[in-house]
Amino acid sequence: MYPLSVDQPYPRNQWWVAAYASEVGRDLLARDILGEPVILYRSAAGEALALAGICPHRAFPLAKGCLVGDAVQCGYHGFQFGPDGACQNVPSQSGVPQNARLRRYPVAERGGLIWIWTGAAERADPANIPDVASIGLGRPDWAVEEHPIKTVDGRYTLLIENLLDLSHVTFIHDKTIPGGEKVAAIPVSVIETQTSLTVQRRGENLPLNPLIKMQFPEQTGPVHQHFDSEYLGPCMIRTGGAMYDAATGAELGIQNYIHIITPASPTRMHYMVMTARNFGIDQPHLGEIQIGMGSRIQPEDIDAIEAIERVLQSGATMPQEISARVDNGALKVRRRLEAQIRAEAA
Amino acid sequence: MYPLSVDQPYPRNQWWVAAYASEVGRDLLARDILGEPVILYRSAAGEALALAGICPHRAFPLAKGCLVGDAVQCGYHGFQFGPDGACQNVPSQSGVPQNARLRRYPVAERGGLIWIWTGAAERADPANIPDVASIGLGRPDWAVEEHPIKTVDGRYTLLIENLLDLSHVTFIHDKTIPGGEKVAAIPVSVIETQTSLTVQRRGENLPLNPLIKMQFPEQTGPVHQHFDSEYLGPCMIRTGGAMYDAATGAELGIQNYIHIITPASPTRMHYMVMTARNFGIDQPHLGEIQIGMGSRIQPEDIDAIEAIERVLQSGATMPQEISARVDNGALKVRRRLEAQIRAEAA
Amino acid sequence: MYPLSVDQPYPRNQWWVAAYASEVGRDLLARDILGEPVILYRSAAGEALALAGICPHRAFPLAKGCLVGDAVQCGYHGFQFGPDGACQNVPSQSGVPQNARLRRYPVAERGGLIWIWTGAAERADPANIPDVASIGLGRPDWAVEEHPIKTVDGRYTLLIENLLDLSHVTFIHDKTIPGGEKVAAIPVSVIETQTSLTVQRRGENLPLNPLIKMQFPEQTGPVHQHFDSEYLGPCMIRTGGAMYDAATGAELGIQNYIHIITPASPTRMHYMVMTARNFGIDQPHLGEIQIGMGSRIQPEDIDAIEAIERVLQSGATMPQEISARVDNGALKVRRRLEAQIRAEAA
Repeated sequence: MYPLSVDQPYPRNQWWVAAYASEVGRDLLARDILGEPVILYRSAAGEALALAGICPHRAFPLAKGCLVGDAVQCGYHGFQFGPDGACQNVPSQSGVPQNARLRRYPVAERGGLIWIWTGAAERADPANIPDVASIGLGRPDWAVEEHPIKTVDGRYTLLIENLLDLSHVTFIHDKTIPGGEKVAAIPVSVIETQTSLTVQRRGENLPLNPLIKMQFPEQTGPVHQHFDSEYLGPCMIRTGGAMYDAATGAELGIQNYIHIITPASPTRMHYMVMTARNFGIDQPHLGEIQIGMGSRIQPEDIDAIEAIERVLQSGATMPQEISARVDNGALKVRRRLEAQIRAEAA
Repeated sequence: MYPLSVDQPYPRNQWWVAAYASEVGRDLLARDILGEPVILYRSAAGEALALAGICPHRAFPLAKGCLVGDAVQCGYHGFQFGPDGACQNVPSQSGVPQNARLRRYPVAERGGLIWIWTGAAERADPANIPDVASIGLGRPDWAVEEHPIKTVDGRYTLLIENLLDLSHVTFIHDKTIPGGEKVAAIPVSVIETQTSLTVQRRGENLPLNPLIKMQFPEQTGPVHQHFDSEYLGPCMIRTGGAMYDAATGAELGIQNYIHIITPASPTRMHYMVMTARNFGIDQPHLGEIQIGMGSRIQPEDIDAIEAIERVLQSGATMPQEISARVDNGALKVRRRLEAQIRAEAA
Repeated sequence: MYPLSVDQPYPRNQWWVAAYASEVGRDLLARDILGEPVILYRSAAGEALALAGICPHRAFPLAKGCLVGDAVQCGYHGFQFGPDGACQNVPSQSGVPQNARLRRYPVAERGGLIWIWTGAAERADPANIPDVASIGLGRPDWAVEEHPIKTVDGRYTLLIENLLDLSHVTFIHDKTIPGGEKVAAIPVSVIETQTSLTVQRRGENLPLNPLIKMQFPEQTGPVHQHFDSEYLGPCMIRTGGAMYDAATGAELGIQNYIHIITPASPTRMHYMVMTARNFGIDQPHLGEIQIGMGSRIQPEDIDAIEAIERVLQSGATMPQEISARVDNGALKVRRRLEAQIRAEAA
């Protein structure tokens, strides 16, 4: 997946996550998405909006401007653009230049996330946003935590590959993920659907580790635990999964780790994590534990990805790539993503 | 003007300002000019000199050497070059290699500035230096202040555009320029001559602002005030202008802001400012006020220019440019500058 | 020599110094050599080994992994590679992928140095390593000091040129090398052999300087002193040489400065220095003096080289190169090196 055997680095006819819904309000938020500067804000009525971030007058970054009502005012010469992107006002004259408008991106708010469509606007269909409710987002019967957004100096495909091969948990996260030392040895199967691909590991009769003990204080015996990697498109991968009492087979609960991946540029990405569980939802300390663990685990993945990105950019001779059998799912995802990009080019 | 629709980024058959005269003395001063390292110094007799800054022996930067009499001695192997650029001495031998010389740049000292001609030496004609006396430089009947030189990470054309569209004053400098909030709304006219182009704004019946009050303590009523942008070539733009008692039409005085623009590289420039006035020339506190204001205003322009430069270099899709009617003068200057560069290429 | 008139920047069928022998042990040492990341370590039996530093599985830098016995374990997914470079173990499966191996570099340990062959392995012949014993390395009857390794932001050829034109001593090192002020004026001769080229300067009847006084406390009169620059290949240059009592012609001793040059990338190099003498070998304070002098002298050369590298990368117009007669040896070395590189391309 590095490099992809395609010309452009990312699909554009795709919903990506621009921001947590909680980040977007009545101030301009600047975010680079697929190599373009975007500004995000809410109208007075609360609607999330995404406009191109470069003023067409003299290329000033609009994020350095401000909101005037629902319009964006450029900080350089005061040109104003409405929430539809059209230029509304030029301070030095009455009337506005023809064709003066910012690109407006289609936006949807779902599961606590602001989704942005980066392709041709007429093809934007919110039905193609991953079904985030099914994994616990935006539901009253699940507890969800937002982990701090990070920007990573690496191409987004490195994170996709990272998450689809959880055998790395045993090596990168050996000190930070309880029970992680077992993961590399668990056999995998791959489940494919139209919209997802899951690399499935089912840990059986695992001894209780400290995390599970805190999550399920009444559990005393060993557990079955799923270590899924579910690819929901290049924008989102779910890891984690269900846990069961090994003695009875009864489900204890589901702990999902939702990884949100947004290319910032060909070699940089935004990385958000949400944790979601359908048990102990009235116990905030379980969420605090997840936030604390994430603050230790995520930097380990970021370090690995940035180290690989430096190798890729170093000009060193790249060895011929080898893969293990557990990489089968990741390789299929590569081909899905390449096919998606190729289809756009055609 | 970004990018110019020409191949090379700047005219070379042009006088540029290399330095304030006060900067150049009996030490070597290094300055990048139009992408080339230049060393500046004065002969023992006081003549300002400009030579190429790379030793032709082993490419050592000559600015790390020293003066020996009027010759420049390389700090690496001690080769010496006279004020005409010719190699005079090689320590390890008698005689010097053939064709061993530094490029010598034609230089003129005028208005407290060291001017350098970057084109073919035989075409250097000091008559083509802007008439700086007419705007207050080098005259006993004007007071002049030198503001600290700044190097800006942006192409020089961004500063030209900045200065020719003073409607930015209302937005960028709303807290630092007294009365600036009115500028964007004042209508403009464009006056063209062979050697200059002025975008003229004439503020009428403006209420006294704190600056004018300090400059003209006896003035009590409103004033007329000129907000000129006079392009004197890519090297220099004058802003400011005359002020009048609105009641009688009597001229109070002229306050010029002289902006000196020298490309350091295709994407970097040196930016000097001189303030000049023909009133209160025995009142140094008026000069201190200008220096103080400059220290607050200039960083605002530099921030804007560097922000645009980052956009231009980001690889983002540039929107189709739009212009306001007040940009008419700036667009004419673009065409002048492009024609000047094209004429050199031909 | 900058740029060389050849396409690739360095010869690969060449022994280079990868590290001091003392640096290599049972931890992985990462070093960039000729643009490639290399890992160095010793087997449990003490053999020095050099392997390619990029994991062929997912391009993780192996230096972030660890040793497991004599095998290198990748820090990302735990793939293991034996001392011959072959993949030995993949944690998630039995068996290893076909063709899974790291490049293994031929290595030799000689004169306290780990030598690495960067060309085709079958052409590696330790007989082509410079005869370091003849200049004092690895011998019980000489005292040797290892100076700290430095990485320099400059192409390696700049250091070769620096060392072959010692007239720079008079200018760059005028405050740090006792007696250096005389060097530029001493005539040179060039001695060529199949494997070396020496630019020879013989100082005659030099007054005793403080360094020689400390080295030979019984010496009271003037000395003859050799200032050699012996090119032993692009990897190593010896400076210094023998000293004699000027009155009797008796040799006092030899003080060699052995400069070890290893390209890290086209524009970066590793620079090691060893000092070696055949007198006062039981007097450690003489070694401490050398280490102290090196800590002052080497940064002066590095500053000069990095300054030239910045000039070369600046995009400035390069002057037509001139050379002095004393550059004759350095120019011959350029042609040797270019011929060596051309022979590989053919």
